[in-house]
Amino acid sequence: MPLKIALAQLNLMVGDIQANARTIIAAACHSKERLAADLVLCSELSVTGYPAEDLLLRRDFVRQARQAVTEIAKHSPTRLDLVIGFPEMDEMGNLFNSAAVLRNGKVLVCYRKMALPNYGVFDERRYFKAGAQTCIFKLKDTLMGLAICEDVWRPGILANNKKDGAELVLVLNASPFHAAKMQQREDIVVNQARELELSVIYVNQVGGQDELVFDGASFAVDHLGEVVFRAEEFKEQLGLVEYTDKKLQKTNCAPFYNEISSEYQALVLGIRDYVAKNGFQGAILGLSGGVDSALVLALAVDALGEKQVTAVLMPSRHTLEMSMEDAISEADALGVKRHIIPIEPAVAAFTELLEPVFAGTRPDTTEENIQARCRGIILMALSNKLGGLLLTTGNKSEMSVGYATLYGDMAGGFAPIKDVPKLLVYKLARYRNSITRVIPERVLTRPPSAELAPDQRDEDSLPPYKMLDPILEKYVEHDQSVSEIIAAGFEPDDVLQAIRLVDRSEYKRRQSPPGIKITPKAYGRDRRYPITSGYRGDKAEDSL
Amino acid sequence: MPLKIALAQLNLMVGDIQANARTIIAAACHSKERLAADLVLCSELSVTGYPAEDLLLRRDFVRQARQAVTEIAKHSPTRLDLVIGFPEMDEMGNLFNSAAVLRNGKVLVCYRKMALPNYGVFDERRYFKAGAQTCIFKLKDTLMGLAICEDVWRPGILANNKKDGAELVLVLNASPFHAAKMQQREDIVVNQARELELSVIYVNQVGGQDELVFDGASFAVDHLGEVVFRAEEFKEQLGLVEYTDKKLQKTNCAPFYNEISSEYQALVLGIRDYVAKNGFQGAILGLSGGVDSALVLALAVDALGEKQVTAVLMPSRHTLEMSMEDAISEADALGVKRHIIPIEPAVAAFTELLEPVFAGTRPDTTEENIQARCRGIILMALSNKLGGLLLTTGNKSEMSVGYATLYGDMAGGFAPIKDVPKLLVYKLARYRNSITRVIPERVLTRPPSAELAPDQRDEDSLPPYKMLDPILEKYVEHDQSVSEIIAAGFEPDDVLQAIRLVDRSEYKRRQSPPGIKITPKAYGRDRRYPITSGYRGDKAEDSL
Repeated sequence: MPLKIALAQLNLMVGDIQANARTIIAAACHSKERLAADLVLCSELSVTGYPAEDLLLRRDFVRQARQAVTEIAKHSPTRLDLVIGFPEMDEMGNLFNSAAVLRNGKVLVCYRKMALPNYGVFDERRYFKAGAQTCIFKLKDTLMGLAICEDVWRPGILANNKKDGAELVLVLNASPFHAAKMQQREDIVVNQARELELSVIYVNQVGGQDELVFDGASFAVDHLGEVVFRAEEFKEQLGLVEYTDKKLQKTNCAPFYNEISSEYQALVLGIRDYVAKNGFQGAILGLSGGVDSALVLALAVDALGEKQVTAVLMPSRHTLEMSMEDAISEADALGVKRHIIPIEPAVAAFTELLEPVFAGTRPDTTEENIQARCRGIILMALSNKLGGLLLTTGNKSEMSVGYATLYGDMAGGFAPIKDVPKLLVYKLARYRNSITRVIPERVLTRPPSAELAPDQRDEDSLPPYKMLDPILEKYVEHDQSVSEIIAAGFEPDDVLQAIRLVDRSEYKRRQSPPGIKITPKAYGRDRRYPITSGYRGDKAEDSL
Repeated sequence: MPLKIALAQLNLMVGDIQANARTIIAAACHSKERLAADLVLCSELSVTGYPAEDLLLRRDFVRQARQAVTEIAKHSPTRLDLVIGFPEMDEMGNLFNSAAVLRNGKVLVCYRKMALPNYGVFDERRYFKAGAQTCIFKLKDTLMGLAICEDVWRPGILANNKKDGAELVLVLNASPFHAAKMQQREDIVVNQARELELSVIYVNQVGGQDELVFDGASFAVDHLGEVVFRAEEFKEQLGLVEYTDKKLQKTNCAPFYNEISSEYQALVLGIRDYVAKNGFQGAILGLSGGVDSALVLALAVDALGEKQVTAVLMPSRHTLEMSMEDAISEADALGVKRHIIPIEPAVAAFTELLEPVFAGTRPDTTEENIQARCRGIILMALSNKLGGLLLTTGNKSEMSVGYATLYGDMAGGFAPIKDVPKLLVYKLARYRNSITRVIPERVLTRPPSAELAPDQRDEDSLPPYKMLDPILEKYVEHDQSVSEIIAAGFEPDDVLQAIRLVDRSEYKRRQSPPGIKITPKAYGRDRRYPITSGYRGDKAEDSL
């Protein structure tokens, strides 16, 4: 008997169980009525959204989620199987990351996730106990298995589904984006599908949640290992596949975005959802004439529309004329509202107030920080008064080495490009210009400067980004040692300087706003370092 | 044969493997030479310090720790067993939280921790695999077992040591402080010791590490369940117990501090170690004339000495005369340096700069925030220029409901009383005054005010602290639901207001500096909530 299976790639809201229930019920009704589906597959923990973090430790939250499962079952169409994810508590008070199959108003079976990730951004063992067995159920004449996200990455779980009789496995996922991740996911499933001669349907959540973006890119793989369906990335979609004569039928396969384009889309979706889900009226940002704020402006406009974005130019005595020109040209090219508020009077007020205490000291970064912090105050005042979310414009290279002012340019509610290294900032800016030209060429070619002191350039304080970025990638993302990085051909002085700066800047990162993860290891929940730390790398090994 | 066992309650430095190795070797030499000890017991992961967090994911770090074990063995006295903790990697690359017994220059045996805590502040399953078996070794004619921290909280592990022949179990710990925790620890051990007729020696780390304070309070319990030795709290100490005729001999038992006193000591140690271990030259803070900054000043002076603390008074037009008087009297009573820097000229500069954009709007919290942020800039400038750590003075009640200005009074590197609810702030201030009177009585009796608007009082915006604090404790520390808290007799309006404010303030807390955990659940790594969250408590349950 042919089966029609709908893939519900939905943008859910963490914690808003009622809204998620309504979204799921609507997807079920649509799938039944418009698509004539026999089964609808939703994503992991779809009832609560993912990751709900310590909300999962609340009894009231877990109870509400369970009640929602009952409500969803009651309000969904009959003669339709609906597979949803929810936190399931047993009689002993143990919590499981479960999938429920709802049929004709009732819970038919529940499957409990066996592989609980507890690395990177994941803390599932903080909340859940692991399940112990597969769960096979029959729809018409087809035996189906269930798996949840990490289960497909752990060898043996899909195989056990096959062994226990499943010919088709439904996988519920909440797999966050990083560059090239969608290909990784498909590969891991395709290889097992082919080897086990098992059909697999994989549904991923879509949308932004604090630091994470879920890219969707749900797909179906037949028992020969061919991808027969792929949903669009970064969009909600109800896909449909047919299982006929024991085979998934080929249908629409949306192409993958290329890497740079998917990174750009992830950033846009991350901004859009943070603003919308937190109830902000648009966004504001400081526009300096540099490439970082130029990129964030373009991202914000692409996410929210130009009417929802306000740019603020805050020149000081160190701001070059061309910086103002370029900033104005960026704001005008994108059609956003802009304010020009010079900071000198505020800086002068602090200089005078501090003069009695500072008398006899020499200028240092203190004076640079005062300028950055005056801008921070102005931007926060505009955000407080007018209601827009303040976006910071710092990139990952700066966040790594602490080349940013706490409460200054780091002030803001969301840091869109916090996980974007400087060289990638340029690539993304050029990519955006290739669609429509919104950033002046000069911004992409002049040497970067914070413009907090006369003739200042980033390279006065830091190794050139061409050296710095790969060193940072090796140290931060791949946990390589000083010796390994030097052995790879980098200047020992550059390596030691970069790493010392990374280690010393943890206190700044701890107070930075959340940003969007696009690399395999982002700052935040993904990389948890102590502030107080005496570790100085493997160069110290011989000094006992 | 009698045995002398030294308890090395040491203040170690996370990440500084070389320094920790030297500290351990010195303790071993002293124990052998001065105390004639047969065995020295150190705390959990003593080689790396605890918690080393994601440093444990670095191969170079784990390799260095292993080399340090070899070095420690080589440099320690012969005819002395030395028990230390280190991260042990097996040939497969699995990491264990292990204890090594060093004897005569070599590793005699290793025990791998079986119970890995992954709740609260603990993430051990992120790093470690669990061990699978007890480890019994013989010293002279005594069979000893080993256990590590959480092992004694999980039923069965001490029992298995007994079953496998141990008559005395050595427990390595890194058990962080919260109020009344030491009594809990002793109770759990005493009960098992008595029931199993097993002697237990328990050594805990001491010292501050970012958000955590380890209080020491190491102890020994004989096979009848009597505490025969207790080390002092909050101090390094090399204790000594004798095991003669199969019985631990009674010796010095330092009394427990009472609860308020232990909380005060924990805060003092937390400040002292954060400043010292991060290499700051003393501390500075803004002194408002309110009770919060008065307490933080006293704590800072008790931690660092009056010469290392600078107080800054920053009056505005809303600052009452008595606030200035009281602040000056506090600074003078403690003998710290003080600066008076009025903020009006800076506030006026921003008011003027923003006038064109703000024209036609009404004053709101924007203007209050500008004042708080001008103070933040001044304090950070002083910290940047003079090198002291800026301490924030916000309490847990404020942090809970967001009654604080991001980048304003929240600006700073460390937040000592972030986990101290307002009512406890008063208790701690009175406790400190009971030693020497340093805070004017008026500060303890006048209604609290942020003094950011005319005649402002906290109670204009918040429920009275007598209501607020217990509501917050139930909601934040005990995860109780709205219904449960109302059922306990609190005003529904107060409960709903408090909880709405807590939920909405997560973005502020995410950017707050670390502070010292003294309650069972602190903000920070202990309570991980999403910023983006649609959860509105169990009052929303019926609205689907």
